[in-house]
Amino acid sequence: MASALAVSVLGVTGYTGQVLADILLDHPNVRLVHATSASSGGKPLGAVLTALRGRTELVLEAPNGLERLARDSDVVFSCLPHGESGKAVAALRTFNPKALLVDLSGDLRLKDPSLAARWYGHAEPVAQEAVYGLSEVLGDEVAGAKVVSNPGCYPTSALLPLIPVLKARLATGPAIIDSKSGVTGAGKQPTPFTHFGEVAESVKAYKVGEHKHAPEIEQALARWANAPGPVTFTPHLVPMLRGILSTIYLDAAKGTTTESVLETLASFYKGRRFVRVLPQGELPDTKDTWGTNFCDVGAVVTGGKVVLFGALDNLVKGAAGQAVQNMNLALGLPETTGLLAPPKSARLQVAG
Amino acid sequence: MASALAVSVLGVTGYTGQVLADILLDHPNVRLVHATSASSGGKPLGAVLTALRGRTELVLEAPNGLERLARDSDVVFSCLPHGESGKAVAALRTFNPKALLVDLSGDLRLKDPSLAARWYGHAEPVAQEAVYGLSEVLGDEVAGAKVVSNPGCYPTSALLPLIPVLKARLATGPAIIDSKSGVTGAGKQPTPFTHFGEVAESVKAYKVGEHKHAPEIEQALARWANAPGPVTFTPHLVPMLRGILSTIYLDAAKGTTTESVLETLASFYKGRRFVRVLPQGELPDTKDTWGTNFCDVGAVVTGGKVVLFGALDNLVKGAAGQAVQNMNLALGLPETTGLLAPPKSARLQVAG
Amino acid sequence: MASALAVSVLGVTGYTGQVLADILLDHPNVRLVHATSASSGGKPLGAVLTALRGRTELVLEAPNGLERLARDSDVVFSCLPHGESGKAVAALRTFNPKALLVDLSGDLRLKDPSLAARWYGHAEPVAQEAVYGLSEVLGDEVAGAKVVSNPGCYPTSALLPLIPVLKARLATGPAIIDSKSGVTGAGKQPTPFTHFGEVAESVKAYKVGEHKHAPEIEQALARWANAPGPVTFTPHLVPMLRGILSTIYLDAAKGTTTESVLETLASFYKGRRFVRVLPQGELPDTKDTWGTNFCDVGAVVTGGKVVLFGALDNLVKGAAGQAVQNMNLALGLPETTGLLAPPKSARLQVAG
Amino acid sequence: MASALAVSVLGVTGYTGQVLADILLDHPNVRLVHATSASSGGKPLGAVLTALRGRTELVLEAPNGLERLARDSDVVFSCLPHGESGKAVAALRTFNPKALLVDLSGDLRLKDPSLAARWYGHAEPVAQEAVYGLSEVLGDEVAGAKVVSNPGCYPTSALLPLIPVLKARLATGPAIIDSKSGVTGAGKQPTPFTHFGEVAESVKAYKVGEHKHAPEIEQALARWANAPGPVTFTPHLVPMLRGILSTIYLDAAKGTTTESVLETLASFYKGRRFVRVLPQGELPDTKDTWGTNFCDVGAVVTGGKVVLFGALDNLVKGAAGQAVQNMNLALGLPETTGLLAPPKSARLQVAG
Repeated sequence: MASALAVSVLGVTGYTGQVLADILLDHPNVRLVHATSASSGGKPLGAVLTALRGRTELVLEAPNGLERLARDSDVVFSCLPHGESGKAVAALRTFNPKALLVDLSGDLRLKDPSLAARWYGHAEPVAQEAVYGLSEVLGDEVAGAKVVSNPGCYPTSALLPLIPVLKARLATGPAIIDSKSGVTGAGKQPTPFTHFGEVAESVKAYKVGEHKHAPEIEQALARWANAPGPVTFTPHLVPMLRGILSTIYLDAAKGTTTESVLETLASFYKGRRFVRVLPQGELPDTKDTWGTNFCDVGAVVTGGKVVLFGALDNLVKGAAGQAVQNMNLALGLPETTGLLAPPKSARLQVAG
Repeated sequence: MASALAVSVLGVTGYTGQVLADILLDHPNVRLVHATSASSGGKPLGAVLTALRGRTELVLEAPNGLERLARDSDVVFSCLPHGESGKAVAALRTFNPKALLVDLSGDLRLKDPSLAARWYGHAEPVAQEAVYGLSEVLGDEVAGAKVVSNPGCYPTSALLPLIPVLKARLATGPAIIDSKSGVTGAGKQPTPFTHFGEVAESVKAYKVGEHKHAPEIEQALARWANAPGPVTFTPHLVPMLRGILSTIYLDAAKGTTTESVLETLASFYKGRRFVRVLPQGELPDTKDTWGTNFCDVGAVVTGGKVVLFGALDNLVKGAAGQAVQNMNLALGLPETTGLLAPPKSARLQVAG
Repeated sequence: MASALAVSVLGVTGYTGQVLADILLDHPNVRLVHATSASSGGKPLGAVLTALRGRTELVLEAPNGLERLARDSDVVFSCLPHGESGKAVAALRTFNPKALLVDLSGDLRLKDPSLAARWYGHAEPVAQEAVYGLSEVLGDEVAGAKVVSNPGCYPTSALLPLIPVLKARLATGPAIIDSKSGVTGAGKQPTPFTHFGEVAESVKAYKVGEHKHAPEIEQALARWANAPGPVTFTPHLVPMLRGILSTIYLDAAKGTTTESVLETLASFYKGRRFVRVLPQGELPDTKDTWGTNFCDVGAVVTGGKVVLFGALDNLVKGAAGQAVQNMNLALGLPETTGLLAPPKSARLQVAG
Repeated sequence: MASALAVSVLGVTGYTGQVLADILLDHPNVRLVHATSASSGGKPLGAVLTALRGRTELVLEAPNGLERLARDSDVVFSCLPHGESGKAVAALRTFNPKALLVDLSGDLRLKDPSLAARWYGHAEPVAQEAVYGLSEVLGDEVAGAKVVSNPGCYPTSALLPLIPVLKARLATGPAIIDSKSGVTGAGKQPTPFTHFGEVAESVKAYKVGEHKHAPEIEQALARWANAPGPVTFTPHLVPMLRGILSTIYLDAAKGTTTESVLETLASFYKGRRFVRVLPQGELPDTKDTWGTNFCDVGAVVTGGKVVLFGALDNLVKGAAGQAVQNMNLALGLPETTGLLAPPKSARLQVAG
């Protein structure tokens, strides 16, 4: 493995793109060669994303040089919006079949073309060769893949706790997934939904029964947990920048205990640094995962229910961090490269 | 009804007591005559709770003059901590049997002495004559009562949407109640749990399967919704000052639709100003209830589940506001007196 | 004075308009007869500003019926944007010369036409008959006025502490005014400046040396404090909804002490309920004024400087509340009518 | 330079200690060998500071083994409280004269024993050999030092913009320093001052004319900017986790322009990666420095005043980050080692 992979990012000025650039600028095996922006082509990256001032000399490019970008790159990440991103990946695939392509949009996630058409308006054929990059569950498929479809933030927070428990038949669905997300999950577009005056001192649900991440979760549970069927998914917006906590309710199988659930989870994720299964009596807090690629998982069995918890940073493990993890896995690097060291704990804690 | 009821508050310097004083200072039928504080007796109320500067000349009293306080008062509210409050109410009952006593603690809520002993450490006999003051459901019992046990904040947010739906058999339990609360629900005591450095940028569950409000909800559903049995209750802490949103999951009965649920709710609460049943397609936001005595209720039927939402301000409808509403009901005043006008909408909204 | 003044509001769906509506709905001498909205005409006010659901049946009107609105109204408040508002007031003045007009924009604040033209792009002749409604300083001029220009939020927070101290020659300028404002001061328009993702965990200055409120402050100091000359004004945005704290630096005159400054302030504002001069050793906190019409004022003399503090809620005393206070003063009502009772303390305090 | 310096931390469970551990765990030249905690000795670091779970196996030690710790260590950082820390450094100095000692408390900052006694209650003799580690100004003195006194968070934010401007005589004092700090600057101790219910929606000044950092700033300006005399320093608390913005007012010298100030600053800090002098027209935002060791500096000359701005993360450049930078400088490592790469930009930005 050469020490400097040439890496490019499409759509770097969105939140996901920014966090991705931040990680890549520190990744020891990577050199950032192109970064595109529809609105800021020609300006220095550090002048547009001022937090990155002094970190890089890279100049943003308009998005119209896709062919050259593809040829210059060993790896391309697409942080373009749904709708545009899948088409860009299809084009990149033609321009440079050797490059690793990682799509952070939802365009390539749903394999059933009719579902893709219903939820994303279009089914891209390249979706059929895209591996769903849920790193700790599907890492073997990611290794050697050329196209990776990076999972959604909510699905990652729900699937990591759910899959081992459903596979082991410790509980049965239909799963109820009650998720709470920080505001950056809604993207950088200024709207009433993201206005400080609306969001501060507010908790509310949205898109109940209508969120694109529900079919993504259902597809994953059917394929990798032998648990087909609908889920009830209720996303909520809470007044914080980053973080998702998913609280998940299942019917406990006979004999299932908190201990048995935690043991099953710990065993499933043994050796995987980024999933931290919490000891009995502790529950995940989004703050412990802030700025990191960790997903913290916990469980309580009570009153006939298995209650599972998954917490992560929606922009790192829920997006850019898992995308880099998938790059590492696809290219044979240790999965933690550039991710364990640089992302810092941003939780400040009142310890004993 | 005389225009100036003599009213006293025990434990006024906690959050609930402060909001109660704030409401009472504006109530047109009330004169605040005594307010006690274990720590600040002898100081002016406005010097201790500086937000109330210039609103009142009242001087705080040490808590040792309970007998005189009882004799001077037509109404006494107790905002003392669990454990102390029930005993104080019992003593007040003896000192002045004519006074209306409203207990904002949990001490008198559980009617089954063994449950009370298990969850609160002690069963007060006076609990047997205390009416559970869920105003819109049990207002008829509150009218004329001498002892009112004010409901908990979480139970109010869950019971107001749940009771009409379960009573009408539009859905069945066991109910899953996933609640999100602002930090003032945890009280004024400085602890790691309420430290800004811990709470900001954090969402976490706590006391899963172990919260005192679960048996309170179960008791109410058994008594007033014909729905006995356990509930699954998961409280969460979110980084905001005030507000609770409870998201509730039930199994839909055959034929139940979003419309039928909303119609049942609207019919049940017809004429009750403080429960606002939202139109189809709108979901409650805690912010709309900030600083007010409103509880906003919404519903979606999806995937075989009835998903109910209840939003309120934990310190107003979830505590001090409902306590004043109960005083109004008990004394034959219009239930909105002193509550509809003064509490302001604190939501600032990015409207079209 | 009839018990129900007919009152109208232009531009009710902005933040200032919403808070104004909220106050007026509870004002005992007022009936809200018209409220206009450029974007939501024809919809119920309570459906657009959902926090006001259940408080009023009023239907919003398009802004094109100004003549009829003027004729129907005893009082009209204009919450229209700068540029539009002054013109509307001029038109209303013609349509109904008997009505009281209160302009909450900046259009009529600067009396020097060249200054008005420079900062607001246009000088309205009606500005010459508008009284600058700094209630506690210019209440005598407001009484009986027909056109009131309501002061800006920053100027109110700075002028209330500054004027008595400069008038009494306890200190000299040029004043340095370092102000910190919550986000609602920037209005309801979704922009990067008000996006939660930008504002949370951020403090920054903006428009240094270029803010419209600097000439407004300079005009007031020259006219009413005999202190002409420039001020240095630095506004900052802080991550909260409501509140302004202005920290003000002056050179202390010989012999000036903290005591003498506080005595001068207390004497100046004797009998005025809405300016609370804090005792020595206490400093204003925006939170104590949240949701109220209070301005809290404090002072420290140290190292040859007089440091003054003014704290208020930018939407109440800094806008809608002072506008209603001015209506009260203009019409001979007690200045606290509809303001002291309803606005609640929204500060929750960890008292001793 | 060996690739693994043995490094120890005293008092690791406070906020500063936690961020320091976080940085050191990723520093390529460092091995963390001891970390002490008065309250949690014997527990794994990752179990006490749960954000660090899975990052280290280190077990906390009680603070009573100072001699062995000193002998085992090439470098010791003390994050103990004021009062304890200076004494510990003096003891460590005896136990291992070869070790580099970095004190993050204020105990060794004031060189004048009478000032030290007045502000910190005691003057440690070891203060006389301690270099004041303002890295970009005093790096030459830090190189080769054995005892470094790490600057305070407020002083760093004020001195970095002030020193070059005062030295170049572009402006004169006395300086007025109006600083705004996030809540973590107040430490981890749960108190009313740090309670979420107090801090959210609040801006307030504190310790005006009485803060320990004022004499520290005065000492530095006298020594390294030839600008003796008092400063006016007003710290404020704002509702965010991390970040300080200092807004500084000086009298402009004749002919001083915004350009000349910015050129002087840029020239002074040429080649120093961690001070970013912003271009004309841009002002620092604490958010751009969140989680990083950067201090962003800006300037505006207006109305006869030079207004300077310094923004930093109080826990990184204001504490732990600058401490590591000083270790790097003292030991001849590049000053950015372990600091430029790992600390990430935590600002999420709504770019064009």
